[in-house]
Amino acid sequence: MAPEHRFDPNFTQNVINAIGPKTEPRTREVMSALIRHLHDFTREVELTVDEWMMGVKFVNAIGQISDSKRNEGQRMSDVLGLESLVDEIAHKHISESGEEPTSSSILGPFWSPNAPFRENGDTIIQSPHQGEVALMHGVIRDLDTKKPIPGAVLDIWQASSNGKYDFQDPENQVDNNLRGKFRANEKGEYYFYCLRPTAYSLPTDGPAGTLFKILDRHPMRPAHIHLMITAEGYKPVTTQIYPKDDPYLSTDTVFAVKDDLVVDFKPREGDPKAKLDLEYNVVLAPREPQQKNAPPMQGVSRL
Amino acid sequence: MAPEHRFDPNFTQNVINAIGPKTEPRTREVMSALIRHLHDFTREVELTVDEWMMGVKFVNAIGQISDSKRNEGQRMSDVLGLESLVDEIAHKHISESGEEPTSSSILGPFWSPNAPFRENGDTIIQSPHQGEVALMHGVIRDLDTKKPIPGAVLDIWQASSNGKYDFQDPENQVDNNLRGKFRANEKGEYYFYCLRPTAYSLPTDGPAGTLFKILDRHPMRPAHIHLMITAEGYKPVTTQIYPKDDPYLSTDTVFAVKDDLVVDFKPREGDPKAKLDLEYNVVLAPREPQQKNAPPMQGVSRL
Repeated sequence: MAPEHRFDPNFTQNVINAIGPKTEPRTREVMSALIRHLHDFTREVELTVDEWMMGVKFVNAIGQISDSKRNEGQRMSDVLGLESLVDEIAHKHISESGEEPTSSSILGPFWSPNAPFRENGDTIIQSPHQGEVALMHGVIRDLDTKKPIPGAVLDIWQASSNGKYDFQDPENQVDNNLRGKFRANEKGEYYFYCLRPTAYSLPTDGPAGTLFKILDRHPMRPAHIHLMITAEGYKPVTTQIYPKDDPYLSTDTVFAVKDDLVVDFKPREGDPKAKLDLEYNVVLAPREPQQKNAPPMQGVSRL
Repeated sequence: MAPEHRFDPNFTQNVINAIGPKTEPRTREVMSALIRHLHDFTREVELTVDEWMMGVKFVNAIGQISDSKRNEGQRMSDVLGLESLVDEIAHKHISESGEEPTSSSILGPFWSPNAPFRENGDTIIQSPHQGEVALMHGVIRDLDTKKPIPGAVLDIWQASSNGKYDFQDPENQVDNNLRGKFRANEKGEYYFYCLRPTAYSLPTDGPAGTLFKILDRHPMRPAHIHLMITAEGYKPVTTQIYPKDDPYLSTDTVFAVKDDLVVDFKPREGDPKAKLDLEYNVVLAPREPQQKNAPPMQGVSRL
């Protein structure tokens, strides 16, 4: 296939051919495609030397601002839509094959394996905040039989009203603030108090902020709650839900909102602990009999 | 045009459409193409979550090892062939338009604006080394008339026999070791002593080293000498030259060698100062009359 450009027709293949014989087949496949697409991009826009050098400086700046609590590389890829795209691809694989990924990276940087079990009716709010309290409740059922699943576990995590998760914000939040696991009762019900989530800006003091500026984009994520629901014998679900009146729903800066994830917080009457009510019911699909209970994994969780 | 894949056909366009109205047209063009090619790459190989996360960590590591004396971002782009490709595109623009780029980044990280003028017959070797000394000489002529160009300036810079440039190696090399500018005499001749250059490895203790390993590639650049030749009224030339017997000529790890840049070091008789002789003649093209004397710029110089 002849290349459709006016530059050296052999150059890209030469770079790909430099990959040695001991390279793993999948590494060869991925890196060959990456080289080809990066070269095609460079030729298509006829990237100038100054633009290339700006890109080099930009890439260096991403790592330079990253540390154990800040992953600017992930943020940049989110802002370019890559995490959502990888998530879509993973979902496609799951739905086609019945397989589950084995990595926990898909849970995102703010899930914690240490969230405590709490009792239904408890609150996950352990530190002061400026938000509104909601009773979140629902029933976890079997997709096929519609019967409740007693003992199913719902794991919730959310940022506080200042837009930060507990371990980003040790001066204001105790460990496991706004985290908890709840076990469905014999009717498949769960219920607890949490915050109506708050929209927040991604940090704009790094390369992602520069990108927002030059692309004339806002840095906001719509408010959201993270959920992971598991039960013995069922496929796990990891997701996040968004209040339906959030102004950033259609312009989420990391492109993660899907229509079926939008929920409705309603006024709650007669409860001194909460002014809002959120009903969220879950259906879990039975696992194939031959599948073993792999780590729960579905969807990419986000900051 | 319908996308040729089984994923959301609108996703990539949605990410591109998020670019706001105040974005510069060229920024929009470049970033739209970058997003499209990155998404196409991701879908084509059906990048997994683990692979995406490896890529994120890799990008972060590039900046984390970079500092004022180390540009791992540039190195990575060299190893993927991007600097050579940008160089080819810039040359094409120059040859088609007669224009010259105005940036100095194209000179690469090791050119110095402070290299001293030296006299013909001097040596640029100012510090101890393990290399072989050569007399480099030649005539600088007009491309059209073939007449010599008295006063033309040849600026040379090269790494020492340990593969390092002066400011990378302050414990072994004085400032401006292996650098100098020489003015052609009335016959257009220049001549000076320098080192036969030495092949060397790019640093392998960072992400580029990881890439060499997983791609089963060697990290070597062939030996080379950097040159920039300028004269009033002529188009400047920046280039690098390679000894013809270098074992890495055909596998330069940054893909920079071109056939017409290969030179022949010959034995030199009766000169106690040098055992090798290198003749390198230069032709300069007259500048168009209307062009002003812009900064010298041609070709991408490399470490």
